[in-house]
Amino acid sequence: MLMLIPDAEIDRWLVEDVPFGDLTTHALGIGERPGRMTFQARETLVVAASEEAARLLVRVGCTVNEVCPSGAKVEAGTRLLVADGPAAALLAGWKVAQTLMEYASGIATVAADIVQTARAVNPKVVVACTRKTFPGAKAISLKAIMVAGAVPHRLGLSETVLVFPEHCVFLTGESLASALARLKCVCPERKIVIEINSSDQALLAAQAGADVVQLEKFSPDVVATLVARMAEVTPHAKVAAAGGVNPANAADYARAGAHILVTSAPYFAPPSDIKVVISAR
Amino acid sequence: MLMLIPDAEIDRWLVEDVPFGDLTTHALGIGERPGRMTFQARETLVVAASEEAARLLVRVGCTVNEVCPSGAKVEAGTRLLVADGPAAALLAGWKVAQTLMEYASGIATVAADIVQTARAVNPKVVVACTRKTFPGAKAISLKAIMVAGAVPHRLGLSETVLVFPEHCVFLTGESLASALARLKCVCPERKIVIEINSSDQALLAAQAGADVVQLEKFSPDVVATLVARMAEVTPHAKVAAAGGVNPANAADYARAGAHILVTSAPYFAPPSDIKVVISAR
Amino acid sequence: MLMLIPDAEIDRWLVEDVPFGDLTTHALGIGERPGRMTFQARETLVVAASEEAARLLVRVGCTVNEVCPSGAKVEAGTRLLVADGPAAALLAGWKVAQTLMEYASGIATVAADIVQTARAVNPKVVVACTRKTFPGAKAISLKAIMVAGAVPHRLGLSETVLVFPEHCVFLTGESLASALARLKCVCPERKIVIEINSSDQALLAAQAGADVVQLEKFSPDVVATLVARMAEVTPHAKVAAAGGVNPANAADYARAGAHILVTSAPYFAPPSDIKVVISAR
Amino acid sequence: MLMLIPDAEIDRWLVEDVPFGDLTTHALGIGERPGRMTFQARETLVVAASEEAARLLVRVGCTVNEVCPSGAKVEAGTRLLVADGPAAALLAGWKVAQTLMEYASGIATVAADIVQTARAVNPKVVVACTRKTFPGAKAISLKAIMVAGAVPHRLGLSETVLVFPEHCVFLTGESLASALARLKCVCPERKIVIEINSSDQALLAAQAGADVVQLEKFSPDVVATLVARMAEVTPHAKVAAAGGVNPANAADYARAGAHILVTSAPYFAPPSDIKVVISAR
Amino acid sequence: MLMLIPDAEIDRWLVEDVPFGDLTTHALGIGERPGRMTFQARETLVVAASEEAARLLVRVGCTVNEVCPSGAKVEAGTRLLVADGPAAALLAGWKVAQTLMEYASGIATVAADIVQTARAVNPKVVVACTRKTFPGAKAISLKAIMVAGAVPHRLGLSETVLVFPEHCVFLTGESLASALARLKCVCPERKIVIEINSSDQALLAAQAGADVVQLEKFSPDVVATLVARMAEVTPHAKVAAAGGVNPANAADYARAGAHILVTSAPYFAPPSDIKVVISAR
Amino acid sequence: MLMLIPDAEIDRWLVEDVPFGDLTTHALGIGERPGRMTFQARETLVVAASEEAARLLVRVGCTVNEVCPSGAKVEAGTRLLVADGPAAALLAGWKVAQTLMEYASGIATVAADIVQTARAVNPKVVVACTRKTFPGAKAISLKAIMVAGAVPHRLGLSETVLVFPEHCVFLTGESLASALARLKCVCPERKIVIEINSSDQALLAAQAGADVVQLEKFSPDVVATLVARMAEVTPHAKVAAAGGVNPANAADYARAGAHILVTSAPYFAPPSDIKVVISAR
Repeated sequence: MLMLIPDAEIDRWLVEDVPFGDLTTHALGIGERPGRMTFQARETLVVAASEEAARLLVRVGCTVNEVCPSGAKVEAGTRLLVADGPAAALLAGWKVAQTLMEYASGIATVAADIVQTARAVNPKVVVACTRKTFPGAKAISLKAIMVAGAVPHRLGLSETVLVFPEHCVFLTGESLASALARLKCVCPERKIVIEINSSDQALLAAQAGADVVQLEKFSPDVVATLVARMAEVTPHAKVAAAGGVNPANAADYARAGAHILVTSAPYFAPPSDIKVVISAR
Repeated sequence: MLMLIPDAEIDRWLVEDVPFGDLTTHALGIGERPGRMTFQARETLVVAASEEAARLLVRVGCTVNEVCPSGAKVEAGTRLLVADGPAAALLAGWKVAQTLMEYASGIATVAADIVQTARAVNPKVVVACTRKTFPGAKAISLKAIMVAGAVPHRLGLSETVLVFPEHCVFLTGESLASALARLKCVCPERKIVIEINSSDQALLAAQAGADVVQLEKFSPDVVATLVARMAEVTPHAKVAAAGGVNPANAADYARAGAHILVTSAPYFAPPSDIKVVISAR
Repeated sequence: MLMLIPDAEIDRWLVEDVPFGDLTTHALGIGERPGRMTFQARETLVVAASEEAARLLVRVGCTVNEVCPSGAKVEAGTRLLVADGPAAALLAGWKVAQTLMEYASGIATVAADIVQTARAVNPKVVVACTRKTFPGAKAISLKAIMVAGAVPHRLGLSETVLVFPEHCVFLTGESLASALARLKCVCPERKIVIEINSSDQALLAAQAGADVVQLEKFSPDVVATLVARMAEVTPHAKVAAAGGVNPANAADYARAGAHILVTSAPYFAPPSDIKVVISAR
Repeated sequence: MLMLIPDAEIDRWLVEDVPFGDLTTHALGIGERPGRMTFQARETLVVAASEEAARLLVRVGCTVNEVCPSGAKVEAGTRLLVADGPAAALLAGWKVAQTLMEYASGIATVAADIVQTARAVNPKVVVACTRKTFPGAKAISLKAIMVAGAVPHRLGLSETVLVFPEHCVFLTGESLASALARLKCVCPERKIVIEINSSDQALLAAQAGADVVQLEKFSPDVVATLVARMAEVTPHAKVAAAGGVNPANAADYARAGAHILVTSAPYFAPPSDIKVVISAR
Repeated sequence: MLMLIPDAEIDRWLVEDVPFGDLTTHALGIGERPGRMTFQARETLVVAASEEAARLLVRVGCTVNEVCPSGAKVEAGTRLLVADGPAAALLAGWKVAQTLMEYASGIATVAADIVQTARAVNPKVVVACTRKTFPGAKAISLKAIMVAGAVPHRLGLSETVLVFPEHCVFLTGESLASALARLKCVCPERKIVIEINSSDQALLAAQAGADVVQLEKFSPDVVATLVARMAEVTPHAKVAAAGGVNPANAADYARAGAHILVTSAPYFAPPSDIKVVISAR
Repeated sequence: MLMLIPDAEIDRWLVEDVPFGDLTTHALGIGERPGRMTFQARETLVVAASEEAARLLVRVGCTVNEVCPSGAKVEAGTRLLVADGPAAALLAGWKVAQTLMEYASGIATVAADIVQTARAVNPKVVVACTRKTFPGAKAISLKAIMVAGAVPHRLGLSETVLVFPEHCVFLTGESLASALARLKCVCPERKIVIEINSSDQALLAAQAGADVVQLEKFSPDVVATLVARMAEVTPHAKVAAAGGVNPANAADYARAGAHILVTSAPYFAPPSDIKVVISAR
């Protein structure tokens, strides 16, 4: 159990797509004939949501014989899941299970790519994925990035302290240093993260006690310079590079010395390509 | 009312991201200060889900003054939504509303692009989007493609007849012609769509009475040849081009004479870029 | 799997009736005593929802030994379901399971009656049941009519094109022919069904390209005349007889040549009579 | 507020029928045109669920101008509800609202008929409706019978004590008198109701302290005889006639002296006939 | 099955606390290591919700070997539940299961204490717990008091007749006797309970036919006097003592002759103390 | 908006208690008479959930005129909420609203007491409440402690790193220092909290880089000694005192120098005493 996707969520995915069974199967009268369905990677990918796909297939009446676990990096041709059952069950669950694994594996594959690329440069860098998941799809999206070696940047607004410039407009005259001091007092069990827009602000924030300064859309060069200055002045503070981090530039940001790469890119990944073969038995 | 997104769905998006309010706002003690939040397009886009974003902001305690309707094609800089309210409400609803509109507008923008590109060549071509939406996100995804001028290919498995090769493996010796004849009998109120893999099969299916033959991953050239042959032999039957249709090749398929372009591409669109400005009042 | 009734729906039926267990059983202190419960047809009926009744009984703690499948036509005295378990489980699930099967079997029995009566006259006639199900009870109602050999006329408003006169009042001057032509363009994958109120309109609609003309409350004689005329003029178009179709007149409409009988009658059927015997073991 | 039907329940009815809007309205492009929708009784009926129909119409975007309250007995031609709005809203809500009111008013009308018929003979007789409602539809069904002057016999198993013969099979040798005595002790705040199958048992049960003896499928004559004997011997005990009570025999049972008529008949009533007129404005 | 707690409710408890798994376990990388978790009473207590705790642990992936049933009174040191599974499953379910059993057992323990104390004085006295449960937690709270030998006073407002003074303010001049007479007529299957504030009112209500008079915050002495007077005048009527009944005074009220002790005290009980030991295997 | 309690949650509280309206009001026929309901503190308390109580009353049909905001500390006699409406609405919402405010205010009052007591000694001490809320009641419980000046210790398992000894049993030979180092690497945006059982372990953990050491059931004296030692050796690390912290000993722990008091005590608070007066108008 990495995380529990409730049965009701799995039923929701199913009912959304197959509210009253597969009409074509029913009209053809083939529903009771036994068959087998095999899911196979069509490209190199990092598997995700295979366990949920398996549960989904069991719910519609299949037996699942084989599941490749979430997190496995597999080559094209690898079998990901094999299910047996009556045609009506196989054909009802087929595309929902496939689509689920394809979206989740697409996310996991890009997340793993960023993690691997960045760590090749700096083995200690952390890839933290934002909360910019498709509305209503947070659980499966987080599972996908976590099995790929990334961590959630924040789960939502309620459990972390991240001061945006949009918070600061309401400070009405109070200095940032004073506000940060108050936050450290009120939330001693949470790190204080602050998103800033200039290198000067970053230094000021770190000096004022921010635990993490999040640099929004800084170039790797600017990040590198800032990391160096901060290492001297505020060695405790971490630097997070955010805004446009993706597989192509992750190594640059890692090389620049950012401790944390904050990225939404995996969530926008195209679905992985997974082949499904159905045969009668 | 194009379609009703229930309140519970909107609350689900909210609670997923902000289960217990914005901790940072609370810890800073700025929640009661009045402010204004403005959403603005950062690029040319087709708006979608602005009405749901507005409802979401109202639910957290904002007043919405201005909403650009779903379906509008707007230039960079256009105001999409303006909301007033206490800082706690603005900051709680901000990113969920933004993310919602960004994903939905991303889908709508690509869908509109395909529609426009294809119709420039053939004004009668129909763009039908598949059911390959992110699991759990069908309603908002369908709204996005519909306001962009596309139609749903099928809502799910229960209301349309689409014979896949995967159904045929269970026919155990029965000819396709016989199976199609049975389907036409059983489902006289539904068109019979069949996905086929070769031009010969396509002709056979049309001759056997299929209303739509869906060509999976045929090149535009092959589609063009087949459309011509079918126009002679089975003029009633429609040709749907599916599998890999996207903005880049939509014109080619339209030019090839396909009546329907079946595509999943809009669902995999990157989110649109929408800027949010928050100011104190 | 004809269709998936989610666990949450079954729990909903249970909790509605037995939110906190059977008080009588609890107060008598007999809950742990083992027993057997047998459901038996008291009249000829077509079974429906026996699988859901079985799942419901399992959820409260029974073991189900025997289930007569949905769709079976059985004589009075036939055993439909046998469950063993502690008295508390049997007595908690008893009436919910019985009522469920009685309502669903009542629907299935009338639907099967219409199907059989009509097909005795014309083996190709299709019985399509409307969407006039008890609000909130669509899934179980559709399962009942489908296992009886009927099909859903439409699942709802979102997936089929059915032009009612109530749509036409908004056409503001556009001719029906023009409107139908537009619909055929926009929805090439769906048949265009139109409900009309006079024979002349029916012919016009068919000539304008309607795939199905739905005759609301026409007598069988008028249907017969119209079917004959349409067979000459618009042989592709189907005729659906709707409004008041029931077991008593289904044969007349079938004889009149209607291709489709559209009926709500099964949904208003009285529940079937099912006897339950509970015994201690 | 007689009872609260939650918003989520109303949305459930809607989404079940109109998950993604009315496709026909959308395809015709008429959704924004303003119109009016009027619901009118086509026969004498007792209105029910008009308030919920109104809420439903408001949820899809209509304005409701006029609602005839639940419980009103109206003649054919009476206006029950008038709503204004864009065509898309009117056409989306139309049938769900109509079907809801038709089912609920059908129930209310039969319940009121039984109440009126029985009270014409004995003004003190109480009509109690069973829990045999369509699974999942208890709230709206109970509202319908309550506005008609009937009361719920029991809401479910958890809040009332009703000893069925099916409970007694688990008593393993204990006399009914002893079991009833125990029940009176354990549940001093609830009346003890017992369903019995013979007049002798009825007398025994009343003598043993049952508050209500429920006679399952006794003829009015046998009921009359028993009521007379019980009036002498156990004047405190009430007699409930159950099993097959309906509008046709309610007066007979009332005349026989039964204090309570227990009936499921209203729930099986055919829907009332309600006409809907939609016009452009 | 005393009562069914739906799976969705159990998932709700889980997801509330562990929406995306145990981050600490995940970050430590120890999730797959096998372990055992043992729940043990740290004090004398009456077990409740152990069955639900077991179901919860199974849902996260544990195997449950041993469950001490709800209702058992156990000494400190008694094993209540033993579960095996991977560390990720054990650590995810641990505190939710523990907290659930602690709250429920706390309620059961106080309820059992009141029952035992009161019955030591009067073995026939009934302890009825009010509906003042934590909002949203009725099912598990009722299970806790019922396994402890108490009964629910009322499940809610919809199934029992309890006249509060707050109802009487709306009677606008009608005498209480008249109102009670009407209630007895309308609700012949329910006992009429009335809460009163003075001994005189109590007698009047009993004489007017109330089945139970509920004395709100009367001292045991006054209760005793009233019980004696009522035994003479209205021997059929029961006396319920309510308002502040708790383990310390329950015997006094029982001795005073109250037939029913109405109490909310168990719901406010501190959680029982249950120890959990987790070990690697 | 401190946090959004969804409408569905409020309806859940209502339907749990009043599924089908107040039977007594209905049977008395007084539902339409207008009245006023006033909630008033009966003791000094910190208000909580008054906003939700108001929303609840509006949902059943009341108008709310006056609401005392959550977080206000009020004296006995203070008006908390005034609602007008028909008797049926007032009497349906009365107890649910009252119970909700009583539980929530009880929690808030104890939380505020601990905060005030501890801060009188050390104005910088933070009171953090555990996740030991009644299962299913997290949102309203967290709101109650937050309006009282406390903060959530952790929202659940998924967003914070807290190493329990129960995690360490799975470390299989790895030193705590090594495990902590790994955690700091993997979760650079979260503080590393560790619960320990001895002063030696506490020092070791702090030296190994723990941000917060949580002392489970240490006496204030031992805490004081440890705080002093840690201030010398590991000045960055915070000390949290947990296990049995309550209003009576909060000052002692604050005086001992604990930076954070971790407590579950507010959740077990008895409900506050709130008086409700209902009058006809």
